[in-house]
Amino acid sequence: MRFLDKLAAARRKNDSLLCIGLDPDPALMPPGIAIDDFNRSIIDATKDLVCAYKPNLAFYEAAGNAGMAALEKTLKHIPTDILTIGDGKRGDIGNTARAYARALFDGFGFDSITVNPYLGYDSIEPFLRYADRGIFLLCRTSNPGGADFQNLRLENGQPLYEAVARKALEWNKDGNIGLVAGATNPAELRHIREICPNMPILIPGIGAQSGDLGLTVKNGVDGATIRTIITVSRQVLYASSGPDFAEAARRAALEIRHQINAHLAAH
Amino acid sequence: MRFLDKLAAARRKNDSLLCIGLDPDPALMPPGIAIDDFNRSIIDATKDLVCAYKPNLAFYEAAGNAGMAALEKTLKHIPTDILTIGDGKRGDIGNTARAYARALFDGFGFDSITVNPYLGYDSIEPFLRYADRGIFLLCRTSNPGGADFQNLRLENGQPLYEAVARKALEWNKDGNIGLVAGATNPAELRHIREICPNMPILIPGIGAQSGDLGLTVKNGVDGATIRTIITVSRQVLYASSGPDFAEAARRAALEIRHQINAHLAAH
Repeated sequence: MRFLDKLAAARRKNDSLLCIGLDPDPALMPPGIAIDDFNRSIIDATKDLVCAYKPNLAFYEAAGNAGMAALEKTLKHIPTDILTIGDGKRGDIGNTARAYARALFDGFGFDSITVNPYLGYDSIEPFLRYADRGIFLLCRTSNPGGADFQNLRLENGQPLYEAVARKALEWNKDGNIGLVAGATNPAELRHIREICPNMPILIPGIGAQSGDLGLTVKNGVDGATIRTIITVSRQVLYASSGPDFAEAARRAALEIRHQINAHLAAH
Repeated sequence: MRFLDKLAAARRKNDSLLCIGLDPDPALMPPGIAIDDFNRSIIDATKDLVCAYKPNLAFYEAAGNAGMAALEKTLKHIPTDILTIGDGKRGDIGNTARAYARALFDGFGFDSITVNPYLGYDSIEPFLRYADRGIFLLCRTSNPGGADFQNLRLENGQPLYEAVARKALEWNKDGNIGLVAGATNPAELRHIREICPNMPILIPGIGAQSGDLGLTVKNGVDGATIRTIITVSRQVLYASSGPDFAEAARRAALEIRHQINAHLAAH
């Protein structure tokens, strides 16, 4: 199934724009639990509440071989009708990008991935060739340093992130490009949505990063197709650090989904 | 030993600015050889000719678990007095960057790494805290698409890559930042060297990407300290695809080192 169809089906099935970022951090997880056990419990507790799961590769790589094995097990445990987003933010020259595409799409089998646009078209094209997969280009990220370069004004008056959004439109021949735009920058999110009215937008930054959910829904939705994915990690995964972490994660995910849908209904 | 001291010692010991990129590509390697055997032969054949080895993580990730195990074995086989550069071009928000730093510095033990600057300061700072390691920020990459964003002019007239170089100067409190600037863009390389006269520059793009070696040496060296690393992958690794690949790699590395040093003497 193509990426956009799978996203739409998962959203409808679970009535949810919520994505849970699977970022297993040993400093925050219940003591002594293995990564794959932690993830399995989180997935079992939330799989009827989300449209996507987004493992961030850094947290698996930080755990070495055991981490990479846990990532494989985690991916096998995610229901096949829920979208997977491999959050690696890769970006390299053509022959290297082909190797990353093999690793992420052929190897791990992700439905979609995040990609850093700094190296330009030939660093992205090897991913785009996988026409049934999704490629989310970093556009305006949610972190404080996101402004350092992404908000620099170009000589035509546009900020850099706008140039990325416009290039994404131009490069989107197969309809498999999406953008990453942080909830912490509501004006930029609205601007990106205006430029790319039909493109899926992956939105981090609510929860631990304090983005406003109402503004995020208002500025991020794109009309009838609702190609908006709101991703939360720490607020769900670490709602409790005790043995009840999975139940606490479910309560947090239920609440966020409810809030998103309430904002959506009011929109 | 601090990164810059290790680089200088390796350069002096082997009279070499040459770095070999260890990018094991099954499509180009001799048929049937394992990645760690291939790398071991390349290292044994060239370890007296280089200042650094630069494994590109994509090629190991593309080979799955066997690839990651081969990367570990490869790193153990690199002589301890030769600089290692983990070429992963990572870049993510603060808590994720900390996880990548653990993976690359604590886990694999790289002396230095490449980092993508698009997410700004807080995506780079967790790496910079490892004051004895080197962080090469992508500035002006060697690939055709490098111009798509990196050469966009800002409203102050500077191209984006210049803003990255100037931020690198500002952020370089511990003297452990370097830049990546491709040999395929001699004018940009010269400009970057003018802005950052003492900063190490990692230069890909000669060899398979056809950058001019004479111009690279002329524009890339920084006077007496010579903090310039010229990195070559395919031209050395795949000088022969037969059983003589290691001898052919040595001949290619010898020739490139000789050419670099001849240009350096004429400079």
